[in-house]
Amino acid sequence: MAASAPISPTIYFGAFVHSTSLIELELSDKGAIGVDSNGVIAFVERDVENVEDVKGKYDEFKEARVVEVKDGFFFPGFIDTHTHAPQHPNTGLFGKTTLLSWLQTYTFPMESSFSDMQKAERIYSNFVSRTLSHGTTTCAYYATIHVPATNLLADICLARGQRALVGRVCMDSDLSPETYRDASPESAIADSKESLSYIRSIDPTGTIVQPIITPRFAPSCTAPVLASLGHLARETDAHIQTHISENVGEIALVAQLFPSSTSYTDVYDTAGLLTSKTILAHAVHLAKEEVDTIKARGAKISHCPASNTAITSGCCPVRKYLNAGLTIGLGTDVSGGFSPSILEECRQAIWVSRFLAMQGADSAKLSTEEVLYLATRGGAAVVGMESKVGAFEVGMEWDAQMIVLGNVDERGSRDGAFEGLVDVFGWEDLGERVQKWVYSGDDRNTKMVWVRGRLVHSRA
Amino acid sequence: MAASAPISPTIYFGAFVHSTSLIELELSDKGAIGVDSNGVIAFVERDVENVEDVKGKYDEFKEARVVEVKDGFFFPGFIDTHTHAPQHPNTGLFGKTTLLSWLQTYTFPMESSFSDMQKAERIYSNFVSRTLSHGTTTCAYYATIHVPATNLLADICLARGQRALVGRVCMDSDLSPETYRDASPESAIADSKESLSYIRSIDPTGTIVQPIITPRFAPSCTAPVLASLGHLARETDAHIQTHISENVGEIALVAQLFPSSTSYTDVYDTAGLLTSKTILAHAVHLAKEEVDTIKARGAKISHCPASNTAITSGCCPVRKYLNAGLTIGLGTDVSGGFSPSILEECRQAIWVSRFLAMQGADSAKLSTEEVLYLATRGGAAVVGMESKVGAFEVGMEWDAQMIVLGNVDERGSRDGAFEGLVDVFGWEDLGERVQKWVYSGDDRNTKMVWVRGRLVHSRA
Repeated sequence: MAASAPISPTIYFGAFVHSTSLIELELSDKGAIGVDSNGVIAFVERDVENVEDVKGKYDEFKEARVVEVKDGFFFPGFIDTHTHAPQHPNTGLFGKTTLLSWLQTYTFPMESSFSDMQKAERIYSNFVSRTLSHGTTTCAYYATIHVPATNLLADICLARGQRALVGRVCMDSDLSPETYRDASPESAIADSKESLSYIRSIDPTGTIVQPIITPRFAPSCTAPVLASLGHLARETDAHIQTHISENVGEIALVAQLFPSSTSYTDVYDTAGLLTSKTILAHAVHLAKEEVDTIKARGAKISHCPASNTAITSGCCPVRKYLNAGLTIGLGTDVSGGFSPSILEECRQAIWVSRFLAMQGADSAKLSTEEVLYLATRGGAAVVGMESKVGAFEVGMEWDAQMIVLGNVDERGSRDGAFEGLVDVFGWEDLGERVQKWVYSGDDRNTKMVWVRGRLVHSRA
Repeated sequence: MAASAPISPTIYFGAFVHSTSLIELELSDKGAIGVDSNGVIAFVERDVENVEDVKGKYDEFKEARVVEVKDGFFFPGFIDTHTHAPQHPNTGLFGKTTLLSWLQTYTFPMESSFSDMQKAERIYSNFVSRTLSHGTTTCAYYATIHVPATNLLADICLARGQRALVGRVCMDSDLSPETYRDASPESAIADSKESLSYIRSIDPTGTIVQPIITPRFAPSCTAPVLASLGHLARETDAHIQTHISENVGEIALVAQLFPSSTSYTDVYDTAGLLTSKTILAHAVHLAKEEVDTIKARGAKISHCPASNTAITSGCCPVRKYLNAGLTIGLGTDVSGGFSPSILEECRQAIWVSRFLAMQGADSAKLSTEEVLYLATRGGAAVVGMESKVGAFEVGMEWDAQMIVLGNVDERGSRDGAFEGLVDVFGWEDLGERVQKWVYSGDDRNTKMVWVRGRLVHSRA
């Protein structure tokens, strides 16, 4: 269905759960959420015994379709604030490497092959299916340096109806192999502009897909290219994404490559790349002055715990950043991260916070409520959509997933058709069901996914 | 099928993978493993192009059934060296608690309800189905203090054909609520003996189910009961399982409760509970002298990383223990651990090892090969079955799983019927497919599971 075609007004009936603040979930057992023909939430009712009563209250909804959730709840769609679509086939392949060796061994060879459009279509189609199936309604994608393949990724997201920020990767320095880097500073900028223009042309309002300026990370770019990208961002008011301070070896490399900069953050700030539309992935090892600068510029953080653990980058001090007032979302960072699931990333954020707690920072622990906030409202703020998505409030758009859990019958068997890992015995309240989903759930529990009220994924 | 009935000789044909040492996997693309009518591996052939050639070589296998694996490989069944079956319904429910508060809030109330045999049957049936579906062919179970429910768990394992060590939990101290503890030292021992005798009566050879003496952990038991259990273990030559040194608060409590002991390990050693048939779960914070004593007694370690992370117990220094020569397997420790999957536990062991590496102990990192060893041969040694299960060697028994991965077609779609998360694009070698399975796999990839050559689980 075209992403802009009008839809039938629909009432989503049954339990719903969403974040009302960093530390609080609203758990509504008997909800009714009305979504109008534009995909916008027109009303949110609680304690509804009979959906017909609600229909009567709202003119536009007198004949509304009703979608009821049973044995589960509606939850906002997840927002993945950082991932690399072309690296999907490398998922799980990292051995004992760390960032810089991993790039050379696994990543650059795979990405360079995206000059092959057939391969790009195969992998991007597969990956977008995967992220949707995990309930990701908005995703910030790194593509590769190739303009045609990057544009194709944007086409796929638009066709499938997934909100996406799609970035052609800019990398002109000789850190990368000759076979996989921008040929010159000029071509780097020209190609970035070309992809940006194309993506804006296919979705002029930017409702579903938007371009994002994407310097890979400081060591991959020369200073002139970083400055030109900063200029381009100002000129076009575009989003920016890059990596920062992921790994101590990388930080040392940046200091060596940019001797006049006072910090990694300063490299980007000097280039004009720190704006309120900038997504900084990782940010594991920031100094206090860097946190202050990022805060002052209004730039955002994408926390990628699975990746940081898998390639041994470090434990991002999320609590410290939250206390400093930074805006934070979650990123799967495939294939440094080993899963395209934000639900898995929620768990990984909990583990990282516990490892920090075990090192003495007890306050570091993130609760289930907090990671679900980061996965939804936090992520929405990172991509600049906090007024549109991430929660169920009147005026927001219906980017949502229907979560269904499994019932264990009296003999201890699972319901015939249901295949997921979450076992509900019947005595759990809605809050406990949410906890079980967070710790044991997977894509099997995500039965349906909507963006702007349009169904973009469903499971048989 | 009765666990002792003879079976048709069968050749398992296709790729197989198993550990040949802690650091090495054998990756055989074209294998043929013959399993005789007793479930014992009669031959292991490599580089087999045509299974008919193999049939001709072995008299007993001339008419053998052939089970072929396509798009995957055979792998040894997993061995879960520590889990709590009655806690299954609490999976995912721990909030921000740590060990001692978690016991009082979640665990004791659930376990105490296993006086209700209907509830016990429902939950135990469900949990054994779950562990089998994750490829666990041998499992060391804690039950509860209730003799009837404990015996029922053994009955279920025997009926389903899962190898199990089943332990009635012994806990007579006043750490536990009055409503859930052994009434007296005498009844504690009598009940333990009763359950032990029952389990030996239903499987006199102990081929499938065996009893295991189970003092919950030192703080739950009085010194006389610990000593009596040590005596009982000697008398009956039974396995023993307990917890040790999981959490710093717990260690302080043990020091306070057992002032004459020199360490937590010494409490068990004094009671005669440290034998070569003892499984010590957790062992996160052992002092060097404790490691030496455990080594000297030949006691074994069950490493439970998911649990240790979830309830913030600490990072078990597995590398240090391996270097000291301890025998180690993996345990899911449901519901401190949030998953009954040993594959998930493999990942969690990798994460914990990486967190130790990030704190400076780079050598702590465990490889994929190493965690798969712990999950199979390591676990087999922990439960005293290292000559019978854990690998594919002539004379061992066929405790195995058929792992099937998903192929991505040329258009980027997954094969129609296949639902798992592992995406294979076709260029990955067997070693890379194993890596993908370890990092992205789940129960959907475990298509069939056998114990002693008998099919104990299969997916449609």
